Amino acid sequence: MAYTIGVDYGTNSVRALVVDTNNGKEVGTYVFNYPHGHQGVIIDPKDHNLARQHPADYLAGLETSVREALKLAAQNDAQFAPENVIGIGVDTTGSSPIPVDANCVPLAIHPHHKNNPNAMCWLWKDHTSVEEAGKITDLALEQRPQYVAKCGNTYSSEWFWAKIWHCLNVDPKVFHAAYSWVELSDYIPAVLSGVKNPANIKRGICAAGHKALYCDEWNGLPDKEFLNMLSPELGRLRDRLYDKAYDLNESAGLLTKEWAVKLGLPEGIVIAIGAFDVHLGCIGVGIKEGVVVKAMGTSTCDCGVVSNTKKVADIPGICGIVNGSILPGFYGLEAGQSAVGDIFKWFVEVVCKGQDSLHGELTKEMAALKPGQSGLLALDWNNGNRTVLVDQRLTGLLIGQTLHSSQAEIYRALVEATAFGARAILERFKEYGVPVTDVVCCGGIAEKNAVLMQIYADATGYEMKVSRSPQTCALGSAVAAAVAAGSAKGGYADFPAAMAKMTGLKDVTYKPIAENVDIYNELYFLYMRLHDNFGGVTKGDDLSLFMKQLINIKQRQSKD
Amino acid sequence: MAYTIGVDYGTNSVRALVVDTNNGKEVGTYVFNYPHGHQGVIIDPKDHNLARQHPADYLAGLETSVREALKLAAQNDAQFAPENVIGIGVDTTGSSPIPVDANCVPLAIHPHHKNNPNAMCWLWKDHTSVEEAGKITDLALEQRPQYVAKCGNTYSSEWFWAKIWHCLNVDPKVFHAAYSWVELSDYIPAVLSGVKNPANIKRGICAAGHKALYCDEWNGLPDKEFLNMLSPELGRLRDRLYDKAYDLNESAGLLTKEWAVKLGLPEGIVIAIGAFDVHLGCIGVGIKEGVVVKAMGTSTCDCGVVSNTKKVADIPGICGIVNGSILPGFYGLEAGQSAVGDIFKWFVEVVCKGQDSLHGELTKEMAALKPGQSGLLALDWNNGNRTVLVDQRLTGLLIGQTLHSSQAEIYRALVEATAFGARAILERFKEYGVPVTDVVCCGGIAEKNAVLMQIYADATGYEMKVSRSPQTCALGSAVAAAVAAGSAKGGYADFPAAMAKMTGLKDVTYKPIAENVDIYNELYFLYMRLHDNFGGVTKGDDLSLFMKQLINIKQRQSKD
Repeated sequence: MAYTIGVDYGTNSVRALVVDTNNGKEVGTYVFNYPHGHQGVIIDPKDHNLARQHPADYLAGLETSVREALKLAAQNDAQFAPENVIGIGVDTTGSSPIPVDANCVPLAIHPHHKNNPNAMCWLWKDHTSVEEAGKITDLALEQRPQYVAKCGNTYSSEWFWAKIWHCLNVDPKVFHAAYSWVELSDYIPAVLSGVKNPANIKRGICAAGHKALYCDEWNGLPDKEFLNMLSPELGRLRDRLYDKAYDLNESAGLLTKEWAVKLGLPEGIVIAIGAFDVHLGCIGVGIKEGVVVKAMGTSTCDCGVVSNTKKVADIPGICGIVNGSILPGFYGLEAGQSAVGDIFKWFVEVVCKGQDSLHGELTKEMAALKPGQSGLLALDWNNGNRTVLVDQRLTGLLIGQTLHSSQAEIYRALVEATAFGARAILERFKEYGVPVTDVVCCGGIAEKNAVLMQIYADATGYEMKVSRSPQTCALGSAVAAAVAAGSAKGGYADFPAAMAKMTGLKDVTYKPIAENVDIYNELYFLYMRLHDNFGGVTKGDDLSLFMKQLINIKQRQSKD
Repeated sequence: MAYTIGVDYGTNSVRALVVDTNNGKEVGTYVFNYPHGHQGVIIDPKDHNLARQHPADYLAGLETSVREALKLAAQNDAQFAPENVIGIGVDTTGSSPIPVDANCVPLAIHPHHKNNPNAMCWLWKDHTSVEEAGKITDLALEQRPQYVAKCGNTYSSEWFWAKIWHCLNVDPKVFHAAYSWVELSDYIPAVLSGVKNPANIKRGICAAGHKALYCDEWNGLPDKEFLNMLSPELGRLRDRLYDKAYDLNESAGLLTKEWAVKLGLPEGIVIAIGAFDVHLGCIGVGIKEGVVVKAMGTSTCDCGVVSNTKKVADIPGICGIVNGSILPGFYGLEAGQSAVGDIFKWFVEVVCKGQDSLHGELTKEMAALKPGQSGLLALDWNNGNRTVLVDQRLTGLLIGQTLHSSQAEIYRALVEATAFGARAILERFKEYGVPVTDVVCCGGIAEKNAVLMQIYADATGYEMKVSRSPQTCALGSAVAAAVAAGSAKGGYADFPAAMAKMTGLKDVTYKPIAENVDIYNELYFLYMRLHDNFGGVTKGDDLSLFMKQLINIKQRQSKD
């Protein structure tokens, strides 16, 4: 009789989940909504790109969500008792770096900085650092091409170094007040295990490898000479970061007495290494070689693993290929779409000015349409393209409108566009030798929208399987905790064993319908023509700069 | 003290306007809404392409609108009396051909045919004859290229021969019951002047030249050999049509006693040759060489005139170049956009599901945006492209969407797209030596939407002047009647004299704002790149078939 807890830090809330290690049964869960900002996100009405979070919310949410989940577990499961909890795993959004002082305290916790967004957590979807990301990319391509070869030859504005450098550029006081910077996924395990010195935080390979250009090939983080070329301040910061990052076979530490009391748990239970939500979601889905896990929500993340005994080529456009990042012993591959649910939300809320219920109505209506019937085709780039073009300066496109094109037709075209975007990722994996035998989906959309899931099956040609758990990230964290605890304590010796027992698929699944697949093969070909022409892949004509010219005009016109 | 009446047959209603010939003052006007069908149009819910009108509505509307307008004139103008009316002019939609029997009676008036849409007037916007139009185009390009050289090398499904041939193909009974076919613009003057034999109808050069391939160069209508190649039935029909068409310097006849009594007007007053609404609208605006008249409504018509003492080259994409069609002594040039107001209507009603008032709200909001600020760009092809591409199988396109693109931004992008479409026409005129010194607008949009008009000025670089009269078509018909009556009767000797007295401009005008023009020059360049790539002008890449492939799939999928 052993249980673990998975704590999943999302964009608007944190969830704690209590799991029976024997069978993966989820016996108690509680969601805490972050109190600060707009649904937990500090925004700037004057700058759509800014997105921050207050670290105080993380700590308050940790305590409340775990305590409440434990209560519910006790109600739901007669055999449950807090003493039977053997470990805690943590997953978070990322790259979400936090400036901390020399005692590992986030600057925003200090009264002096508490209202300064630059002193808070720089949330994954903060895009203020576009300029810095561009410069990092350019310098890397020139001086250290290997640094960006594993992340699509493009360093993103969403990532660690770009954000920190942007902080230096816009708010040097905060930059200099920060002793170090810690990813949220490393910060929470450090808090639970009582690390007081940033140098002692055990950093996860997931954040380090995918966002901070960490790699064994070049002995860790980017070298100082390179960072000095960006800014000597970044070079100096390197000394206060870390030399080594760890996969999930390590643990972050043991639960302190202080937090054991706060949470109502035994002192000294293991704290797993933290990782990003989607990566632990893959664990919660039961990932293995051949399986692509699609986490479908406002955006998507599409992950695969390939044994690290094989040689994996750098894959153009894939956001990251990191040894050990998802599953120890495997290269973790991460791809994704910058906006999926967000596009539908935009259409319903901003274009149609509809209520939430309009999603349901339009889904019902679009179910009555056949593929291709509307004559509409869209590109799913309203938030740029993460994979395979790795270009945030791309925009949406809708083509084929008549004077009769309806809301439901446009909605379906947007759904199909995201399905084609998903297919482009799967095709890219296969093209570079990553086996794709199964696609397993998780996340809100996969749970709720059967019409969409069928379109995805038809448009990709893959059966869309759905993960059994509706909260795979938290479950994955609980699995990681069970492995960190080890079999002697009632956990597991390794991930395959733990996933076999603790994860699974739903009975409901979506198989491709052959006649729809045929039509979608034609439409996908057309989609890829738009994709390649407007995405700069087809070089024969010069449409590739088209959207950038528009954006340049837009920015120029938006200035004063 | 003399007055004329202009009768303007629109898509949903007919308007009669009583005008003081001395100064163009409009002293009485009355609108009669057609009772049949949906707002006067017989439609087929199963076929968006079908649009017919019942000829009985034309006769009922003629009587009522004229009688009521006369009453109002008497109320408004103390000096007015019906005896002072010296002539009637008529303008109508077109090409709107009507099958008639050997006594000039429309078939649909016969009880036997009255509910058969094929026996009614085939309204200008009927698109059921796409296939026939394509075959006429193909045969002409092969056998008689001169026939289509003056109408953009494409014969339209909206036009005379395509419609008649389609009738033969789908309803041979109606075709064979018809002794002849008459354009609505020729039918009404024939009714008023008592023509009982179709051979005696004085056909206007406007409908003949722009829609029926009539030209002096080849001695009238297409030759019999050509028509026989389409169908021997069409060859035989040619003998029952006409050999000669007339410009507005001729008259159609004199008002019969029967209709004088019905209308309450003096018997024997002159009936002007009928013409299309927009062409007589040009007269109502006061057209002359150098002026382009833009009639702006659901779609637009853009007309110019060039002295027939000059040589006018065939202009690719211009819908028609016809000697005498607008103004006697001048080539009349006709271009147009397939949808303008209809696109805004689609967006508001179909996409936003908004009320009519939403137009006003979005117009107010879009006024606050600067050119290019939204990053959006659209193609105005939701109903195909009439000029300069002459291709109905083109569709809309919207590019540049983000997750924040608002209703007002999209609305503005659609307005801008139509402005760029308007500019493409002006540029084409200039490119082929047609002088464009002034642009004068008329129609509902020009009257009502100052924000849109300013965008048009900025996007085209031309001052947008506005015609003084809000009903230029009816006014133009009244001017034509004044010229047909002649100066001895209180009318005028010629059109320049009549237009100088009877037409004018509003004080309000829209001058281009230099800084906006600069931005729009950039955006227009981008618009033309989309235009040329998706419209098949740029041959370097093969995007030109893109929309057709989508439409083909759509049609295939829409079949069963």
